[in-house]
Amino acid sequence: MAKKSPLILVTNDDGVFSPGIRTLVEEMLPLGTVLVVAPDKPQSAMGHAITIHNFLRLAPVDLVPGAEAYSCNGTPVDCVKLAIYKLLDGAKPDLLVSGVNHGANISINVLYSGTMSAAVEGAMEGIPSIGFSLMDHSIEADMEHVRPVIRSVTANVLDHGMEFGYCLNVNIPRKEHGPLIGMRVCRQARANWEDEFETRKDPTGKEYHWMKGEFRSDDHGQDTDVWAVQNGYVSIVPTQFDMTAHHAIATLNTWDHVLG
Amino acid sequence: MAKKSPLILVTNDDGVFSPGIRTLVEEMLPLGTVLVVAPDKPQSAMGHAITIHNFLRLAPVDLVPGAEAYSCNGTPVDCVKLAIYKLLDGAKPDLLVSGVNHGANISINVLYSGTMSAAVEGAMEGIPSIGFSLMDHSIEADMEHVRPVIRSVTANVLDHGMEFGYCLNVNIPRKEHGPLIGMRVCRQARANWEDEFETRKDPTGKEYHWMKGEFRSDDHGQDTDVWAVQNGYVSIVPTQFDMTAHHAIATLNTWDHVLG
Repeated sequence: MAKKSPLILVTNDDGVFSPGIRTLVEEMLPLGTVLVVAPDKPQSAMGHAITIHNFLRLAPVDLVPGAEAYSCNGTPVDCVKLAIYKLLDGAKPDLLVSGVNHGANISINVLYSGTMSAAVEGAMEGIPSIGFSLMDHSIEADMEHVRPVIRSVTANVLDHGMEFGYCLNVNIPRKEHGPLIGMRVCRQARANWEDEFETRKDPTGKEYHWMKGEFRSDDHGQDTDVWAVQNGYVSIVPTQFDMTAHHAIATLNTWDHVLG
Repeated sequence: MAKKSPLILVTNDDGVFSPGIRTLVEEMLPLGTVLVVAPDKPQSAMGHAITIHNFLRLAPVDLVPGAEAYSCNGTPVDCVKLAIYKLLDGAKPDLLVSGVNHGANISINVLYSGTMSAAVEGAMEGIPSIGFSLMDHSIEADMEHVRPVIRSVTANVLDHGMEFGYCLNVNIPRKEHGPLIGMRVCRQARANWEDEFETRKDPTGKEYHWMKGEFRSDDHGQDTDVWAVQNGYVSIVPTQFDMTAHHAIATLNTWDHVLG
């Protein structure tokens, strides 16, 4: 029996006209029907933000022939919600792909990332969802080596399906790192941002602060996403939205929780 | 030996002048030195967003006598970063409390919540962190029954300390629900938002969309936060920032990850 053509929702956080989403749309078109809903401006580091104090707009855009595409004035998660509950009238796509992000989303960056938050939102809706990120911030980054990664992971997800509860966070080393050695299923590394603020004065003498930070991993495990990408592998981290620290429940139950 | 007075960082997402943060500051003042950095406007549902395309400002504000307080033009997570890396010059507070949020942050709402994202950011910094949410959206909500909850959980955290890796998500039923029965350590319920968009036309005839949604839990467990608050208990969920679906790694390792 012929498989029905899957409906694929594509989004990102760099904006609908970024090269990364174009690459992703091009790779999805041979696989099914493609619907694109993506922010009308860069929405990096917007995390799982949604718009509740303002209205949302959708505008049709020309992106890649064969794909129906819209820009949205909201966040990446807003885009997912609008696609499902406005454009598709509550119907769920068969697959959601987000990216290709211009920049890494390894380790704890999954929490800040609009790209990954869109994929997590997809998972919450029960949609097999994948976020792709290239470890190169340049808007002109070469994406050719990313294409076989997109094809491989997407084919696996369409073939095997995915259990409810998680999505995939895929990070690809930049081309300049050398040929990709392979792909590794990983856990999120324990890492942190050592932040810093650069303080300047505006023309009236009032201070303002620019956030700068340095990403630091002190996790020596070879099963982490940080290790994988530093060693020439694509990292694949299954990423869930149950944030319960289940292992801590027993400890917390030894405390006296008394309402005095 | 006398304990050194703890340094307590207070933030929220409803804004520095919301009644909820005032309640929290009042309860922290007898416990230590209080520093408040909170948004200058409502930042609900901002998730773990940070500001990377704009600068940040801090302005001293009069909030509660005895507390040093600042408003910030950024998100709740920005506030935490500015407090640590600008105002405290990299020193970590001994405790971070966020809230009291005007509205529930149970189940998956932890991902959308600015209140909880600030607490999660605290946990990422290794600070014992707690988010408090009252299940009442009214800005005039009665907070008296919340005070003993704040005192109990805070005392426990200061007494026992907390392991690295998670913070606490505390939700308190509204006063009208009746007397609190007790407090329960819970897991995050499996639930979802059934979203809907109300489409209107602006005076030029162009469509715009308002997000509306209905929260739906299909999780019948009696160990969830949803069950607890519906049954008159305060829910306490340990909430971690490792989003790895560790249980899925073995399954994903049965797939053929081939770069074709």
